[in-house]
Amino acid sequence: MPPLTSLHPALERHDFSAILETINREVRERFGEGEVADYIPKLASVPIDRFGMALVTLDGQVHCAGDAREPFSIQSIAKVHGLTLALDVAGAELFDRVGREPSGVSYNSLVQLEFEQGIPRNPMINAGALVVADIILSHYERPREVLLEFMRARSGNPGVGFDPEVFASEKETGFRNAALANFLRSFGNIHNDIEAVLDFYYSQCSLRMDCVDLARSMLYLADGGFCPVSDTQVTRADRAKRINAVMLTCGTYDAAGDFAFHVGLPAKSGVGGGIVAVVPKVMSLCVWSPGLDTRGNSLLGGHALHRFTEITGLSVF
Amino acid sequence: MPPLTSLHPALERHDFSAILETINREVRERFGEGEVADYIPKLASVPIDRFGMALVTLDGQVHCAGDAREPFSIQSIAKVHGLTLALDVAGAELFDRVGREPSGVSYNSLVQLEFEQGIPRNPMINAGALVVADIILSHYERPREVLLEFMRARSGNPGVGFDPEVFASEKETGFRNAALANFLRSFGNIHNDIEAVLDFYYSQCSLRMDCVDLARSMLYLADGGFCPVSDTQVTRADRAKRINAVMLTCGTYDAAGDFAFHVGLPAKSGVGGGIVAVVPKVMSLCVWSPGLDTRGNSLLGGHALHRFTEITGLSVF
Amino acid sequence: MPPLTSLHPALERHDFSAILETINREVRERFGEGEVADYIPKLASVPIDRFGMALVTLDGQVHCAGDAREPFSIQSIAKVHGLTLALDVAGAELFDRVGREPSGVSYNSLVQLEFEQGIPRNPMINAGALVVADIILSHYERPREVLLEFMRARSGNPGVGFDPEVFASEKETGFRNAALANFLRSFGNIHNDIEAVLDFYYSQCSLRMDCVDLARSMLYLADGGFCPVSDTQVTRADRAKRINAVMLTCGTYDAAGDFAFHVGLPAKSGVGGGIVAVVPKVMSLCVWSPGLDTRGNSLLGGHALHRFTEITGLSVF
Amino acid sequence: MPPLTSLHPALERHDFSAILETINREVRERFGEGEVADYIPKLASVPIDRFGMALVTLDGQVHCAGDAREPFSIQSIAKVHGLTLALDVAGAELFDRVGREPSGVSYNSLVQLEFEQGIPRNPMINAGALVVADIILSHYERPREVLLEFMRARSGNPGVGFDPEVFASEKETGFRNAALANFLRSFGNIHNDIEAVLDFYYSQCSLRMDCVDLARSMLYLADGGFCPVSDTQVTRADRAKRINAVMLTCGTYDAAGDFAFHVGLPAKSGVGGGIVAVVPKVMSLCVWSPGLDTRGNSLLGGHALHRFTEITGLSVF
Repeated sequence: MPPLTSLHPALERHDFSAILETINREVRERFGEGEVADYIPKLASVPIDRFGMALVTLDGQVHCAGDAREPFSIQSIAKVHGLTLALDVAGAELFDRVGREPSGVSYNSLVQLEFEQGIPRNPMINAGALVVADIILSHYERPREVLLEFMRARSGNPGVGFDPEVFASEKETGFRNAALANFLRSFGNIHNDIEAVLDFYYSQCSLRMDCVDLARSMLYLADGGFCPVSDTQVTRADRAKRINAVMLTCGTYDAAGDFAFHVGLPAKSGVGGGIVAVVPKVMSLCVWSPGLDTRGNSLLGGHALHRFTEITGLSVF
Repeated sequence: MPPLTSLHPALERHDFSAILETINREVRERFGEGEVADYIPKLASVPIDRFGMALVTLDGQVHCAGDAREPFSIQSIAKVHGLTLALDVAGAELFDRVGREPSGVSYNSLVQLEFEQGIPRNPMINAGALVVADIILSHYERPREVLLEFMRARSGNPGVGFDPEVFASEKETGFRNAALANFLRSFGNIHNDIEAVLDFYYSQCSLRMDCVDLARSMLYLADGGFCPVSDTQVTRADRAKRINAVMLTCGTYDAAGDFAFHVGLPAKSGVGGGIVAVVPKVMSLCVWSPGLDTRGNSLLGGHALHRFTEITGLSVF
Repeated sequence: MPPLTSLHPALERHDFSAILETINREVRERFGEGEVADYIPKLASVPIDRFGMALVTLDGQVHCAGDAREPFSIQSIAKVHGLTLALDVAGAELFDRVGREPSGVSYNSLVQLEFEQGIPRNPMINAGALVVADIILSHYERPREVLLEFMRARSGNPGVGFDPEVFASEKETGFRNAALANFLRSFGNIHNDIEAVLDFYYSQCSLRMDCVDLARSMLYLADGGFCPVSDTQVTRADRAKRINAVMLTCGTYDAAGDFAFHVGLPAKSGVGGGIVAVVPKVMSLCVWSPGLDTRGNSLLGGHALHRFTEITGLSVF
Repeated sequence: MPPLTSLHPALERHDFSAILETINREVRERFGEGEVADYIPKLASVPIDRFGMALVTLDGQVHCAGDAREPFSIQSIAKVHGLTLALDVAGAELFDRVGREPSGVSYNSLVQLEFEQGIPRNPMINAGALVVADIILSHYERPREVLLEFMRARSGNPGVGFDPEVFASEKETGFRNAALANFLRSFGNIHNDIEAVLDFYYSQCSLRMDCVDLARSMLYLADGGFCPVSDTQVTRADRAKRINAVMLTCGTYDAAGDFAFHVGLPAKSGVGGGIVAVVPKVMSLCVWSPGLDTRGNSLLGGHALHRFTEITGLSVF
C-alpha cells in the first residue's frame, strides 16, 4: 500500500480500538433486540447474540471488536460490488436500465416497477440488482468466477467463497425474486435466460465473509476507486463517488433517509445482519449483528454506526 | 331440452334475427377501429374485419349473424368456465383465496396483489384465474381433460379443442403471468408446481370456439345453473347467480363500470376479441370482433352489445 | 298511480309482510354487531339496536317491519338523488368530469384522484359527489331548495327536511371533504366557490328520512324513471338504467363486488346505516341499522338484503 | 467572523472566481432550456435568460458570477430555514409528525400521505413543510416576524422581505396546498387554524432574496450550526448535520437520488429557480436560473452545481 502524502486529521485524533471496544460493550447489553431473518434455515439458525465491527483506514490501520472475524452471509451487501463490476462494463448506459432514486417502498416491491414500466428505481433494491446481474451476464463468460475473484482481490482473502447451502435455499424459496425477474423480462429489461440471472444473483447473495474482509472490500470506495489492498485502480474516481451517492440515498432499503439522518455515511446493509459503510477519503467499516429491525437492517449494527459517528464526528455532513 | 312452462315476454316481442342483422350491418361500417392483440403471432394475424354475433335462448332459439361460425381464440372468456369448475370443488372457500371486488386497475397488474398480500381482487383478472387454476389442479388428476370435456358438453360440440400454436406462444412469451404466479406463490397462494399451473392456465386461454358454441356454453348461467344443451344441472342456482354478479362487476377488466353502464349485462371478454353476455332467465350471447379498445375489450363487440340492449331493452337494470 | 297492465309475477308469489317480519326477527338476534359511525356526535348517539326495513312495489304495495318509520340521517344515499338531478341538467357530459368505474379503494380516498388527474372514479364516492354538487350549483339558483323539493316529491312526504345539527357537525369536522374539494379545484374540476359546494354537499348528507320514505324516493329507478308517487317522469328511462348500473358497481363503497355477489341488486348505502336497493320493474327497498361493517356499510342492513334476495329469489342475476 | 484555526485545503487550491466565471459562460450558451414556473403570474413573468451563482466560504470569501445580485422568489428553499426554526423549538419530537425518508413521488403528492396516515415523508415536501409551519405557529406569537428576522440575520441583509404579490397569488391559487392542509388536519397532524398555517407557509414561499444573500443564509449548515454572518450558534451541531442529511436525501423533490449522484452535496431547490447547496466545513453556495426541468429543479442551476463539483472535486462523497 503506498504511503498517503498527508494523513487525514481524523486519523490522528481518535483511538479507534478503544472506541470500537466501547461500542461493543454497549451493544452487547442489548443482545436479543430485533429479529433474525428466517426465510431460509441457514440464516434462521444464526444466534442473535453476535456482534462484530471492523474498520480499515486508508493509511493501513485495521481495528476490530467482538465477532469481527466470524464469517456471515453478506447477502445484499454484494449489490455494491456487483454494481461496480457492471458500471465498468456498461458505463453510464447502465442507468438507462436502472434508476438512482430512493424507492420509498420495500426492497422487494413490485409496485414501483409496474408504475415505472420495468425500470427499477435503483441498483440497491432486488429488482435493480437483477438488472445489474443481467448486465454482468451479458459481458462475462464466467460471471460467477469474475465476482469471486473481485471479492477475493478486494478483501485480500483468497479463502472467500460462496455458501452452497444458502445458495440452494435462496433458489428454492426465491419466488419473489423469480416474480421480479419475470416481470422485468416482460418489460424487456432482462436479456439473458431468467434462470441464469437468478443463479448469478443467488450466488452473489450467498457470499460468506467476516467484518474485516468486508470492510477491506469497500476501501476502494473511500479512496476514489483505488483499492489499496490489491494496489489497483478498481474503478474510476467519479464512479466511486457515484456508488457512494447511491449507497447513501438507497443503500438501507426504505430507511435510507433515517440512516443518512442518524449515521450520515454511505452504507449498504444485508439481511444477514451486515452493514458496510464508507467515510470518503478516510476509511471503510463493517458491522454485523443478525437481529434485524422492521425494515430489514441490522438493528444493533445500525446503532453501532450511529454511535461511531456520534463519538468521532465522522460523517459526510 | 325440457319445454319452459312459460315463455319470457322478451322472447315473444323481438325478431332477433333481424336485430342481429341490423347490428351486423352497422358494425361492418366501422371495420378497422381498434387494435388487434399482437403479443403473440397467432392473434396478431387475425384480420381486423371480422364480426360475428350469436344468441341462444332458453326456449331453444339460435340466432346469428356475420362470422358467427368462425372459430377464434376465446382467451379470458374461459375464466368463467374455470371459475364454475373450481367453485364446484372448492365451494365458498374459494373466496378465501380470491376476492370478488372490481380491481380498478389493469387485468395483469401486480400492484393490488402486493397491497393485498397475495389475494387477487377477483377471479376474472389473471392473478385470480391463476389461483382458480391452482384449485382445479389440486382437485383433478387430469384437469386439462376435465376442462375440455366441460366446454364440449356445454357447447354441445365435441370438436372443441385447444390451439397448440396459441398455447406454445402464450407459454413462450408469458413472462407477466409467470411473474404473477411466482408472486402468488411467494404469498403461499399457489400450492401446485408453478409450471403446471401456468400450463393449465395457457391451455384454458388457447381454447378455440365460435360465437354459437360460446353462446351455448354460457346458457347455464342464464338458467340458474342448468345447462339445457346437455340437460344437466351444471352448478347450483346460487352459484350461477354469483358468477353472473362477478362477471358484471369484474368481467370486462377495468371497463366493468362502463360496461354495466352501457350494456347492463353480466359479460366476460377475451383479448381474442370475443365477449359473452348473459340475460338471466332469457338467453346468452356471444359477439366477436378482433379489434380491441384501449382497455382490452373488443371495440365493435362492445358496441354491438350496447346496441342490442338499446334496441331490445334487455338488461338487468 | 296508474294501474300496471300486467303484474310482475314476483309480486304475486310472495307474502312480503311475513318475509320482512322473519328478517326483522332474525336481525334483532344480532343487535350489537358492527360499529356506529362516530365521527360526529349526532351519528354517534344513535342506539345500535335499531333495525327498520321497508319495500314499496310498483303496484302500490307498501310493507315494512321494525323501526321503518324512525327517521335517520340518510348521508350518502342522497348521492343517488343528486346524480339524478345533475344528469338531467348536464346530460352525458357529466361523465367527462366523473367516471363510472368502481374505485377499488375507500370512499374518501385521494389516491385515485391524483393518479387520474382529478377525475373521480364515479359519482358514488365523495369526490364524485362533490363534482356532481358543483354541477348542480352551476345550474340552479337555489340548489338546496331544488334538492329538498325533489326528495319531498319522490317520497310523497312534505315533512322531509335537513338536520341542522348534522349539517353543522359535518361542516365543522369535514377536513377530508375540504381536502377533496380543494384537490378537485386544483385540477379545475370544481367551478364554483369551494365553500358553497361543500355547504350543498353537507346539506345533502344531512337529510333526515325514514325507511318508508326512502324506499318510496327510489321507486322511479325501478320504473324506468317514472315516479309513481308524484306521477311524473323524473328522468329518462335510459338514465334510470344507468343510475342503477352505477349503484350496482359503485354504490356500496369498496364492497360493491361483495354486495353484487351476495345481494345482486343496485343499492346505495350511507354511514347513517341506511341502504336503499332497487329491483328493476318490481320494487324499491330501504333497510336501516346503524351498526356499520369495516367498509362503512350497515352490517345488519346488508345481511337483511342478502336474506331478502335469498328468500324471494329476487335479484338482477 | 472568528479566524479559522486551520484553513480547509479545498480553499487554497481553487480560484473560485475563475471557476464561477467559466460556469457562467458555459451556462449562458444554454439559455432557454427548461420551463419557467407559470402557476402564478409573478413567477411566469421572470425572463428565462438569467443565471446567477454565489459561494461564501467559512473563511470569509465571497465569489459570485452572472445575476448573483438579482433578487428572486426563494420559494421552497425557505423550507430549510423553517425546519431549523421548528427543530429548535420542537426538538426530535418534530420527527413524530414528519418523516425523513425520500418520498419517491412528486413534491405536492397526496398519495403517500394517505398510505402513511397523515405523516408526511419528510420536511422538504409541501405536506411536511405545512406540519413544520404548524409547529412554528404553535410556538411563536408572531411567526412571520420570527422568520423574517431569521433570514435577515443569516444573510446579513436587513432589506430581505416578503413579496406581497407572490404571497397573494400563492394564496389565491393554492388549492393543492389547501387540500394538503385539510388532509393533514383530517389526520390530526395540523393543530392550528388551517388559514393561519397556509398564510405562514405562503409568506415563507414569498421571501425574495439574491444568490449572495441566500448562500450566506446557509453558511450555518456548513459550520456545525454556527452562523459566521451573525456570529451566533444558530442551532446545535448535530441538528445542522441532520438538516444536511435531509437536504441530501430529500431536498430536490423526486430527483434527490439523481442530484446526490451528479452533484453529491446537500441541496435544496425552489420553483423560483434557486438552488442552495452546502459543502460541510467549507462553504455554502447558491445558484439561480428560472428555467425548470421536468422535476421542478432549475435545469441550468443543477447543471452549474454539477460542473462546480466536477471541476473542484468538492462533494461529500
